[in-house]
Amino acid sequence: MRRLLITVEYDGSAFAGWQWQKDQPTIQGAIERAILETTGEVVRVIGAGRTDAGVHARGQCAHFDTTCAIPTQRFPLALTSRLPKEIAVWRACEVPGTFHACRSVKGKIYRYTIYNGPIRAPLYAKTAMHIAEKLDIMRMRQAVEILLGEYDFSAFVTGLSERKKKAPQARNVRRIFKLQIDQDGCLVQIEVGGTGFLYNMVRTMVGTLVEVGRGKQEPDWVGEVLASGDRRRAGPVVSPHGLCLMEVLYGREDVS
Amino acid sequence: MRRLLITVEYDGSAFAGWQWQKDQPTIQGAIERAILETTGEVVRVIGAGRTDAGVHARGQCAHFDTTCAIPTQRFPLALTSRLPKEIAVWRACEVPGTFHACRSVKGKIYRYTIYNGPIRAPLYAKTAMHIAEKLDIMRMRQAVEILLGEYDFSAFVTGLSERKKKAPQARNVRRIFKLQIDQDGCLVQIEVGGTGFLYNMVRTMVGTLVEVGRGKQEPDWVGEVLASGDRRRAGPVVSPHGLCLMEVLYGREDVS
Repeated sequence: MRRLLITVEYDGSAFAGWQWQKDQPTIQGAIERAILETTGEVVRVIGAGRTDAGVHARGQCAHFDTTCAIPTQRFPLALTSRLPKEIAVWRACEVPGTFHACRSVKGKIYRYTIYNGPIRAPLYAKTAMHIAEKLDIMRMRQAVEILLGEYDFSAFVTGLSERKKKAPQARNVRRIFKLQIDQDGCLVQIEVGGTGFLYNMVRTMVGTLVEVGRGKQEPDWVGEVLASGDRRRAGPVVSPHGLCLMEVLYGREDVS
Repeated sequence: MRRLLITVEYDGSAFAGWQWQKDQPTIQGAIERAILETTGEVVRVIGAGRTDAGVHARGQCAHFDTTCAIPTQRFPLALTSRLPKEIAVWRACEVPGTFHACRSVKGKIYRYTIYNGPIRAPLYAKTAMHIAEKLDIMRMRQAVEILLGEYDFSAFVTGLSERKKKAPQARNVRRIFKLQIDQDGCLVQIEVGGTGFLYNMVRTMVGTLVEVGRGKQEPDWVGEVLASGDRRRAGPVVSPHGLCLMEVLYGREDVS
């Protein structure tokens, strides 16, 4: 029995998200089917985390166990050739049985892409959110400084059940170690790295930064939102199709 | 009566190319329909050139005449809001009645994108050709030097009718003023600028350069192919979906 860690790229447009659902096309479901066709084994693939419907990934990670004799380095091509064109497994490595794709996560890096031009761009229709109104990137960069660090991000979580809302606040503390805005012509890319993310946290952070970029709020307002812990004060959750999970970080000691 | 020059971006994946065809979705057809809905006028839109089925554009150009009173600067949004999501008109300007989107062309710039990694990349499935075998970019750059300049590119034209094949060779003389290969990780982008292009010329040039990158041919072989004028000696025509028309160049005196 070996445990394999795979790295997956996908165009999430056509899927109902990562997690397996009955009668719905999901990334997890498609990978489990490809493994069955490759190894003859029915397995459960454990992802580093779920991604929502429409969200893309360049470096989603997942693990599964196999007794199949196929060499590890052959798995990417073997699985990819059995996957729909929207999904590819581009790396596989053997990891210790103690490794767990979700529980061993040390951090994740997401990228959110905005096409900021007066007219929508068809070549970015599936991978960037279109904002026609000119954003003030310098203002957004000022606001970014406020979110870097370890804080209670309760104001940036949505869809919490009533039960979870009553859970101790400490559970909503996360550390954001990277938050960078790059601009290249009309393309604005917001890269966010953190030790963990609450539900809809990246998309709410981006929606909040966009309020500042639009001039509707001052950069300092982001600090007030953060301190308030009140979801109703943050900006809207932006569309999933601009979001891409770029990388999942693990400790060297966990994977080898 | 005004003549308007429009600049168009499109994802060519879902279209049977630029040129109007009965019962087929085409870019030209979609734009003419959007103009009819906007101005109430039945017009013929004249493109800078045709693009084949599957080819994309960031800066295709076209002109049409209108007697409609809508201000020129309103046309991009008015047309785009009536176009399918794969097409957008992002610029419009008034040009003299002597301007002609095709006959006034001074040059065009194309970009061909290759995803050069062992496993295909879903996020580039529609916009890049996948080549698994590692390309030697330095060898390709040597070959590029040979194609820069004014030559008879008969060896790089395909689909010529017998009649055209018998036409004087001078008609196949073109000047390539830009030919540059950029590499960023697995992405290889070949940018080609020329005063004009023969049918399938960019895709045949790329197919020929790829033969060199794969090590199947020496860089100097490209010079032999060019000198021979013999289409059978060049590399294959690569897939249309990696090709994008980036820019159409006009003389300042023609547009104002």
